Amino acid sequence: MDIEMGGEFMFGSEAKKVPESDIVMTSRVRMARNINEYPFPVRMDFDQSIFIINRIKEIIFSNESTSPKDFLYFELQKLNNIEKLVLVEKHLISKELMDNRRLGAAIISKDEKISIMINEEDHLRIQAMFPGMQLDEALDLCNRTDDIISEKIEYAYDEKIGYLTSCPTNIGTGIRASVMLHLPAITMSGYLKGILEACGKIGVTVRGLYGENTEALGNMFQVSNQVTLGQTEEEVVYNIKNITKQITNQERALRDDLYKQNTFMFEDKVFRSLGILKNARVLTSEESHKLLSDVRLGIDMGIIKDIEIKTINELMAIIQPGSLQVLLPNSSGQLERDVGRAEIIRKKLNKLKE
Amino acid sequence: MDIEMGGEFMFGSEAKKVPESDIVMTSRVRMARNINEYPFPVRMDFDQSIFIINRIKEIIFSNESTSPKDFLYFELQKLNNIEKLVLVEKHLISKELMDNRRLGAAIISKDEKISIMINEEDHLRIQAMFPGMQLDEALDLCNRTDDIISEKIEYAYDEKIGYLTSCPTNIGTGIRASVMLHLPAITMSGYLKGILEACGKIGVTVRGLYGENTEALGNMFQVSNQVTLGQTEEEVVYNIKNITKQITNQERALRDDLYKQNTFMFEDKVFRSLGILKNARVLTSEESHKLLSDVRLGIDMGIIKDIEIKTINELMAIIQPGSLQVLLPNSSGQLERDVGRAEIIRKKLNKLKE
Repeated sequence: MDIEMGGEFMFGSEAKKVPESDIVMTSRVRMARNINEYPFPVRMDFDQSIFIINRIKEIIFSNESTSPKDFLYFELQKLNNIEKLVLVEKHLISKELMDNRRLGAAIISKDEKISIMINEEDHLRIQAMFPGMQLDEALDLCNRTDDIISEKIEYAYDEKIGYLTSCPTNIGTGIRASVMLHLPAITMSGYLKGILEACGKIGVTVRGLYGENTEALGNMFQVSNQVTLGQTEEEVVYNIKNITKQITNQERALRDDLYKQNTFMFEDKVFRSLGILKNARVLTSEESHKLLSDVRLGIDMGIIKDIEIKTINELMAIIQPGSLQVLLPNSSGQLERDVGRAEIIRKKLNKLKE
Repeated sequence: MDIEMGGEFMFGSEAKKVPESDIVMTSRVRMARNINEYPFPVRMDFDQSIFIINRIKEIIFSNESTSPKDFLYFELQKLNNIEKLVLVEKHLISKELMDNRRLGAAIISKDEKISIMINEEDHLRIQAMFPGMQLDEALDLCNRTDDIISEKIEYAYDEKIGYLTSCPTNIGTGIRASVMLHLPAITMSGYLKGILEACGKIGVTVRGLYGENTEALGNMFQVSNQVTLGQTEEEVVYNIKNITKQITNQERALRDDLYKQNTFMFEDKVFRSLGILKNARVLTSEESHKLLSDVRLGIDMGIIKDIEIKTINELMAIIQPGSLQVLLPNSSGQLERDVGRAEIIRKKLNKLKE
């Protein structure tokens, strides 16, 4: 597999310059599209599946405005479980595409900004992903990719309703805009429940790191729109930007409050977490995420000065189960993985050679 | 006060060469003596107290075999509470001498090996203290100091019973031999209760860091003889050496077992404690002792290689309440002291300049 570990591009050198990157990890826009006159994937036969994969592959790799060498093509059936898991952890494919038994594929730009899933729930799921708060940029790139495809193929589209999709919740614009937010102060202060309720009332969903029904590892929360009908793409993005602005403002105010109210205890918590990460010999995934969340907060607040946010973002990416197994191919049991995880984190934070 | 902080001599450069210093912190022998024809301190008047103090002072500071400039003289009434507490923490005077309202004094050799308390429970308490397992050396030095005094003054002594003392438990040889042991593995494994019971049956007492009724901070235990009657001085010392040998053997075997059985978890515990000490911004005395105990164990076991046992011993000494207040004269509240304590430990372990 040619996808790099650690997401150097997404979480790497650009992370410092991107807007709101103290709280907003990534911005994503994805569009659900289906080819006219073909059944939805769940009802497709083998030949139809193959046809759609090949047609989209042909469009992307022969397009004049994009260079074929900028894209990678993956047939899901040819990837092993770890490779698929890594793509899920990098938010380049969905859990659904990983798990389904149909003929599926993904076309992913090497910079990981564009990802096109083929034969997931819909024929196409076009995704654009940017670091920090860059939903407008993501919408724009998603639209341009969508245009390249729609020039060559006719989508299932109804003048009144909009794009037709397999699941009614995606009908209309077929758009989902989402941001991944780091909310340690809101979590610590116990305000999370209130925010979840407020978001639910205005059609916005808040979930854990990997989408629906997943836990909020390391205080990371994904905020996205629930419905796609009755709003323009721009309205959907505007709403998510708006609620994100309110949440990030609250998170920043709470961080400042907590720090001012109990400076020593705040610094103590942040530095203890750093000390444990730099020294522990056994670290579970869950504890690592918790400690890395504290350290990220410490860096954002200017308390920890000698570690770059980039390093923490990279660690958050590579300690995930799939990515970790790529780095530790010979570790078999849970303890071995926890020992390996601790070693990777320790060496990285102590700037030792691996 | 001319006593140095940190006990450089006792815990300093010699610590590595001394016997059994992985487990035995110090060896102490003290002898209870009273001057003939004078009432015990509890019944003395002012003039008698003064006479005894001056007489002993004269003997020590005019003795030909010892140099007057090797000794320091302290009148307890002229010391402030912090200075007295520091002497207690360094095991140079007892809590009793610190707390009692009689005219008391102490003559302490600058190397802190000899300490003579005057007008504590008995007229004289002569103590010799050495690092590691050096009870024979302590007994020898105690005897030589005792000889210097007994040449010039007549002790209360009965041919049949031996030395007469204020409390009957000290009658006879008047000797108490004690060792301070670091027993983390015995504590962790839950064998402590059994050892306490076994010791009790053979007339040996096991107590916390500062003697009777004190907690075992940082897994430190003081092992000493209960009775002084019916045994020679050599027998008392032999017994304590013997039981200490058994306890240290068990401690070492348990350390090896624990390490072999769960190497990663053992190393994890030790290094996490080091990581917290190196990074925490708030540390209570109790937590510091616990963490330092883990780190000392890690050094003894060869797991932590870049920190000297000397550094840990020094830290154990200076983070005690009195010593800490000397280092942090302006800290008023508990939080301020915990912050100051964390800073001292952090700088020392990170080898930063203070």
